[in-house]
Amino acid sequence: MNDIQLVPSEVPSKANPLWGGRFNEGASELLKEINSSVHFDKRLALQDIAGSIAHAEMLAFCGVLGVHEVKIIISGLHKIKLEIETGIFVFDSALEDVHMNVESRLHVIVGPVAGRLHTGRSRNDQVAVDTKMWVRDATDRLDALLYQLIEIIVEQANNHYAHAMPGFTHMQCAQPVTLGHHLLAYGEMFFRDRDRLLDARRRLNESPLGAAALAGTSYPINPVQTAHTLGFDRPTRNSLDAVSDRDFVLDYMMTAATMAMHMSRLAEELVIWSSPQFDFAHLPENLTAGSSIMPQKRNPDTAELVRAKSGRVFGNLMALLAVLKGLPLAYSRDMQEDKEALFDSADTVELCVRATTAMLAGITINLPKMKNDATLGNSSATDLADWLVREQKISFRESHGIVGNLVKWLEERGKELQGVTQIELASFDPRFDQRAADVLNVNHAIASRNSFGGTAPERVKTAAATLHQLNASLATNKLKSAC
Amino acid sequence: MNDIQLVPSEVPSKANPLWGGRFNEGASELLKEINSSVHFDKRLALQDIAGSIAHAEMLAFCGVLGVHEVKIIISGLHKIKLEIETGIFVFDSALEDVHMNVESRLHVIVGPVAGRLHTGRSRNDQVAVDTKMWVRDATDRLDALLYQLIEIIVEQANNHYAHAMPGFTHMQCAQPVTLGHHLLAYGEMFFRDRDRLLDARRRLNESPLGAAALAGTSYPINPVQTAHTLGFDRPTRNSLDAVSDRDFVLDYMMTAATMAMHMSRLAEELVIWSSPQFDFAHLPENLTAGSSIMPQKRNPDTAELVRAKSGRVFGNLMALLAVLKGLPLAYSRDMQEDKEALFDSADTVELCVRATTAMLAGITINLPKMKNDATLGNSSATDLADWLVREQKISFRESHGIVGNLVKWLEERGKELQGVTQIELASFDPRFDQRAADVLNVNHAIASRNSFGGTAPERVKTAAATLHQLNASLATNKLKSAC
Amino acid sequence: MNDIQLVPSEVPSKANPLWGGRFNEGASELLKEINSSVHFDKRLALQDIAGSIAHAEMLAFCGVLGVHEVKIIISGLHKIKLEIETGIFVFDSALEDVHMNVESRLHVIVGPVAGRLHTGRSRNDQVAVDTKMWVRDATDRLDALLYQLIEIIVEQANNHYAHAMPGFTHMQCAQPVTLGHHLLAYGEMFFRDRDRLLDARRRLNESPLGAAALAGTSYPINPVQTAHTLGFDRPTRNSLDAVSDRDFVLDYMMTAATMAMHMSRLAEELVIWSSPQFDFAHLPENLTAGSSIMPQKRNPDTAELVRAKSGRVFGNLMALLAVLKGLPLAYSRDMQEDKEALFDSADTVELCVRATTAMLAGITINLPKMKNDATLGNSSATDLADWLVREQKISFRESHGIVGNLVKWLEERGKELQGVTQIELASFDPRFDQRAADVLNVNHAIASRNSFGGTAPERVKTAAATLHQLNASLATNKLKSAC
Amino acid sequence: MNDIQLVPSEVPSKANPLWGGRFNEGASELLKEINSSVHFDKRLALQDIAGSIAHAEMLAFCGVLGVHEVKIIISGLHKIKLEIETGIFVFDSALEDVHMNVESRLHVIVGPVAGRLHTGRSRNDQVAVDTKMWVRDATDRLDALLYQLIEIIVEQANNHYAHAMPGFTHMQCAQPVTLGHHLLAYGEMFFRDRDRLLDARRRLNESPLGAAALAGTSYPINPVQTAHTLGFDRPTRNSLDAVSDRDFVLDYMMTAATMAMHMSRLAEELVIWSSPQFDFAHLPENLTAGSSIMPQKRNPDTAELVRAKSGRVFGNLMALLAVLKGLPLAYSRDMQEDKEALFDSADTVELCVRATTAMLAGITINLPKMKNDATLGNSSATDLADWLVREQKISFRESHGIVGNLVKWLEERGKELQGVTQIELASFDPRFDQRAADVLNVNHAIASRNSFGGTAPERVKTAAATLHQLNASLATNKLKSAC
Repeated sequence: MNDIQLVPSEVPSKANPLWGGRFNEGASELLKEINSSVHFDKRLALQDIAGSIAHAEMLAFCGVLGVHEVKIIISGLHKIKLEIETGIFVFDSALEDVHMNVESRLHVIVGPVAGRLHTGRSRNDQVAVDTKMWVRDATDRLDALLYQLIEIIVEQANNHYAHAMPGFTHMQCAQPVTLGHHLLAYGEMFFRDRDRLLDARRRLNESPLGAAALAGTSYPINPVQTAHTLGFDRPTRNSLDAVSDRDFVLDYMMTAATMAMHMSRLAEELVIWSSPQFDFAHLPENLTAGSSIMPQKRNPDTAELVRAKSGRVFGNLMALLAVLKGLPLAYSRDMQEDKEALFDSADTVELCVRATTAMLAGITINLPKMKNDATLGNSSATDLADWLVREQKISFRESHGIVGNLVKWLEERGKELQGVTQIELASFDPRFDQRAADVLNVNHAIASRNSFGGTAPERVKTAAATLHQLNASLATNKLKSAC
Repeated sequence: MNDIQLVPSEVPSKANPLWGGRFNEGASELLKEINSSVHFDKRLALQDIAGSIAHAEMLAFCGVLGVHEVKIIISGLHKIKLEIETGIFVFDSALEDVHMNVESRLHVIVGPVAGRLHTGRSRNDQVAVDTKMWVRDATDRLDALLYQLIEIIVEQANNHYAHAMPGFTHMQCAQPVTLGHHLLAYGEMFFRDRDRLLDARRRLNESPLGAAALAGTSYPINPVQTAHTLGFDRPTRNSLDAVSDRDFVLDYMMTAATMAMHMSRLAEELVIWSSPQFDFAHLPENLTAGSSIMPQKRNPDTAELVRAKSGRVFGNLMALLAVLKGLPLAYSRDMQEDKEALFDSADTVELCVRATTAMLAGITINLPKMKNDATLGNSSATDLADWLVREQKISFRESHGIVGNLVKWLEERGKELQGVTQIELASFDPRFDQRAADVLNVNHAIASRNSFGGTAPERVKTAAATLHQLNASLATNKLKSAC
Repeated sequence: MNDIQLVPSEVPSKANPLWGGRFNEGASELLKEINSSVHFDKRLALQDIAGSIAHAEMLAFCGVLGVHEVKIIISGLHKIKLEIETGIFVFDSALEDVHMNVESRLHVIVGPVAGRLHTGRSRNDQVAVDTKMWVRDATDRLDALLYQLIEIIVEQANNHYAHAMPGFTHMQCAQPVTLGHHLLAYGEMFFRDRDRLLDARRRLNESPLGAAALAGTSYPINPVQTAHTLGFDRPTRNSLDAVSDRDFVLDYMMTAATMAMHMSRLAEELVIWSSPQFDFAHLPENLTAGSSIMPQKRNPDTAELVRAKSGRVFGNLMALLAVLKGLPLAYSRDMQEDKEALFDSADTVELCVRATTAMLAGITINLPKMKNDATLGNSSATDLADWLVREQKISFRESHGIVGNLVKWLEERGKELQGVTQIELASFDPRFDQRAADVLNVNHAIASRNSFGGTAPERVKTAAATLHQLNASLATNKLKSAC
Repeated sequence: MNDIQLVPSEVPSKANPLWGGRFNEGASELLKEINSSVHFDKRLALQDIAGSIAHAEMLAFCGVLGVHEVKIIISGLHKIKLEIETGIFVFDSALEDVHMNVESRLHVIVGPVAGRLHTGRSRNDQVAVDTKMWVRDATDRLDALLYQLIEIIVEQANNHYAHAMPGFTHMQCAQPVTLGHHLLAYGEMFFRDRDRLLDARRRLNESPLGAAALAGTSYPINPVQTAHTLGFDRPTRNSLDAVSDRDFVLDYMMTAATMAMHMSRLAEELVIWSSPQFDFAHLPENLTAGSSIMPQKRNPDTAELVRAKSGRVFGNLMALLAVLKGLPLAYSRDMQEDKEALFDSADTVELCVRATTAMLAGITINLPKMKNDATLGNSSATDLADWLVREQKISFRESHGIVGNLVKWLEERGKELQGVTQIELASFDPRFDQRAADVLNVNHAIASRNSFGGTAPERVKTAAATLHQLNASLATNKLKSAC
């Protein structure tokens, strides 16, 4: 793609006669195979046409082309757009890339005037602006999906703002929390992902059109006009940078990687929760799968695939970083390798966000099991220790030791803090009165952690409302600050 | 680190008697070896103390601790700070991590009251706030270095805004540009890096203090106060997220990766420019190195190392993504693996920015060779083709063909467009008059590309001024929009 | 894929009624979209049929199935194989994966007896054996391509065993070498790649058939028979490992990554050699491309793409490592993510090896320019220093200093060692006699480095012959040692 | 490092006077900071001395140096070796790298004759041979650790060859297996890792000494002698390759990555098994850690860290691939970036293998819970379906449906296959007689899967014996085949 084109005289020349006899593939075939990008960059077709229309309009406005010929060109481009949207456009891999495919079709439709469209433009700035618009569209799609995911999380958090579950650290039951609180942690992650996306969107929003091959052009064009027509804030400030920059692809892929990582964490939890040992939740039946050999299985395939697909999103990022490493200015053909990685990351995270949304929307929670396990593993121990500090005025380090010994003492008797009576407590240490026993109650433990950001139900309810409001206003706020 | 601590009773127990005889290392030694982090997380010491002081003040303010005991604690912390700053503090790896080292020293200095500092706080939120502050400091350091680098680029662009050099695509001479224009392309990249850094800085600026172990705390603390004391905009909204989030480390590492990639591109160019074949530039002598065996060598080691070190910055990013993938909430010990990667990336990019700045500041440019090569490889061909379009009113596709044949015709005569006379041109095609010959002049070619963002000297001069102004106002503008 | 299958009763259930109204996609559609693999795993079709035939034969041999019914099954499978080979087989994505597509077609062809083929087998061991056979085939294809590439290198090394070029370190001219010597360095790299491939091939050559879902089977099967029928050395020793192991995919991808790195180094050199400043070589015209805007360009696109495509091969490796990290035994659906990365890496390196072979076969070398540059940058300095040591009996450290000063002295006079006369040498230091001047001759310098592995022409000739012989016998030797 | 050395005349020159005023760090300081490698490459010191001794001996043998002076040099080197081993050698970072440190010390000890040691050698081949020997030593250390780990696995497999546990797929209970069988799956993985290591060891075992800077040397040296003295099979065949090759580092790091991935899988299982919900196992107490805030916690930190540390091993691999990508021949300073990544990967996997060994050696298994869960989740369903096929002669597809319905029927009654009576079975379908009920017995299910590689206890016992035997003979067999 870009400033490159198969030269017509390149007839498959039987290659070097010295080696030709041995190679039964013409080298030109090889070039086509390694060089042709239309099988993937055709996804830029609509962006390409939009960019060409804006460019043609500007050329007319600036007097570089006549108004009449521009009208002909634009009508031809609209026709091609329709052909693409209705699926009747035939992409030809012999024409190498999407730009040549559109341009060639334009020639057929409007004749030689098609050739004037390329005035003051090169494939280098053309592919840059097309790719930017594609990334911007992908950003908006993904942002909308994330918005929806966060809304589902908020809704489920409202459903479960007071339902107890174990809070884990190190996959050990640590302290009871509410399920709503747990889900909102993911809400915060995905909200940051939206924030990242929108920062990247603002940063990319400069139009490379006008950079031409690499140095700008001598035609009296108006890059500000094309920028605004295409929804960019302004043109890029440096033509060499404009054609050699793929930061905006990296920005997208990095945000995608962070987001995929977040989804992999949630997916891991859903897989674990679905195990018979945990039995915290069942994924909606139509997102699980059975086994061809084991009739009893309901496997959490969707969650496993969301977890796994983070790998390819990481890999795509690594691939592009390696491609760009050490590339001298300005355009090198290496940069064509950005697109497949980009498209794959975009497809993957969009699919994963949709799958995650569906899983959270349709999940069946086993509330009794969650509540039961909330105090498993002596997870009220901190509460008891805190109580000693507060009510018996002993230092935390001492109370930590007392409760640690109590847990060991109970363990030797095959017991846990869960379900112990005040009498048992007092027989271990007379300072434990009825209030101490109350502290072991799971609802008490949860309600007591009412610091800002804590798991107390009223805090969770407020946090859900806040996130809902922030989710609604984020885009507007971002827009304001970008002005 | 974090919510973990070696339990005093863990005497090396000869392990499982079944296997003990065969293992001559106590398992506890292994735990210490794999678990201890003080050899790297001691870099968080000053952040740790600042966080503890803010926490203690807040505890007094909220009435959780007495004012007097807090004063004692804070004076002890100030003493430790001084010990660390003067280098006399001894970190003990037996105390596992930086937090235990500071806490243990505080016990020695102020006695048992030290134990009360931990009230309403856990190592989980403590390490999160320390790391955030460290990343914030690293961000500010890096931002200042980038500011300086951009200023050097602006200055050199002003020096060379009109000096010709070849603009390359595919490492072929494509069109002449000015050296100032070329350098400003990097200025744009590093400016975007600052933009990224400052976006990430705003995003991280929420304080995790108050999250405690994972669920918040029942002590009547005020997380807003500690947040503001420590320069955060607000506390985090979800305690589970607060202790399990390392997005801010990823954000830093991703920006570092993009920046390292940018520097690798410039470094590659500097290496190529230093080759005898290019001979475009010499790095300052004190940034090159000689050879133990080859007396004539002046090797561009600094540029090579800047190029190479991008690899480790990419690797650190991949490492952390892999660590975080699939980690269930909330804190897992895996997260301790964030720090060495973070520190290494920060050290590496800081060093590389400083090295890049020094190389650009001290570089000696071979202007005559650059100018000579500016028209090498028939790089004025586009200008000639454009002239045909403009003056002889033929289509670009046709003129492209004419000039292509001219180049081939010259090649057969051992010539290039560079240095061809009007008579020679006319003998190929009579339409080429004197104006056509003038077009081949390098200064003409450069001056003609005067579209916005183009390489014409006056454009480059303006672009340098614009970048200088944007560089000056970026932080202020970011700050405003964050409010 | 694997032990999973859409259960027929899973009618799109309008999902959870609570959320269903909001989601206009049935969740089952989502499952199909994220779950279906037939669009890529159809590439396993021939391996799948071969595996099924071997399994069916074994079942008959062991008396698990009747000979007659097995004959029917096998004839059906042969029919499907023919359909696939002639391109008339229609893969249906509703049937999820390649295994179900084949099985379903078999049902149509032979009726209910098709169901008996699955006896004593699961999709878990089936996909493992299919993928292993695919990797083995890919290994053999790649090995053959590498063999051919090495042969071209040997041939070109023979052509250029005595032609001088600069040997570079740090992209500075260091010492003259021969082009043949330079090319053979790549020959050694690709030979090690073959060695790696064949090691991995031997290691993978154990058949997972018989592992069934994960635990083995109670049917009296004979895994040794299926292993031998399918060309494996033996069956795997552990059924859990057999279905959860993807080491053989990693082994392939790691070798591919090393190989891609090797090709990227050579490609980088070809790009640099094609620059007008170096002008060492032209790629065959039918592997370069022109520019749509710049009529004079001949861009080394093929080399650039080979260089760039290393990135995706690295990325695929990273992706799979991340997928496999932390996966508990035995089969998890995550493992389905191995295939696209594998296929892409295989396609990429096969294409790149073919492209590299074509480039080296058809390259045009500018021998005079290479020879001229062989002594550029004072690259005979070491020879002169060595001469002083040898003939004038001074220490190397001293002679290093003398020659260093000589170079500086010449530089001040605008000269280099290249072309200096004996008289000039003697005027700097009278110890330099005619023999010293002779040492500066490039052919002398090259011929003198005749240690084993050195660049002296006779050494290079022998080295080419050795590599040719090793290349011929490698596979045989590997085979022998595997027995 | 390598062919590079600070030239004595490089006095910090106040840099470019134009910029000097602004930079308060001398550029030379920057060069030292970015260039100096002694703080990490000092780990090559003993290899460096061994290499120098072998080189010196060879020089004497070949008559390049006198026997007497070589004796002096070697005695000096032995002295330095002792100084290093006893820890009294002081590495000086001003001397840049380990080679200069040793050489400089040798000068002090033996005087100017030290300078002759460098005859026919360069830092380029010197660092290559040192690094190769280091990797070879690291390989041998790691191989010994893996041997030991496999032996522990074999021993534990023998202890538990008949103890039932659930075999999981998708983290759902799939079919009962034995714990010994499960552990041996990891034994197979680690055995393949040994196989990989030993293949890589054979491949690296060619000595680069004699390549000198890049082109070989004119001194009449004998590279075969130094190769054999240092335990290499032969010298490398191409001097350019010898100094630019880091494949052997990649090979090590790739094997380390695969191995780290294996350990991460086991570690994940250990973390899950330690959860109160699973409660399958407790790690040895001295490999777990407590919590500073939660007195009841016993966290599986060692397993979490082993799981996490796979990330840095992957990251190091990606770093080196990126560094080497696109590096032209021969030596570039970029290659210095190989060592820290290598050392870190080696340290990490050695530590992780030791930790994994200790965990498996000291683990306490909760056999009753494992056995109870072995039939959880209706995991005998396949056995029942198989029984219908075998005894009632119905097709597997039909029996799969019957058992699927049975499971659903039981579910509606709050039951599972585990514990169902024959009467209940028959009330669902009269074909289920007592033999069908017996099939549901876990021991029956396990014993019945007695295909080769299956989980039947006698198979597991044999498999453990086989692995033990293969583990013992692997190195010998590899050695034989390498001859």
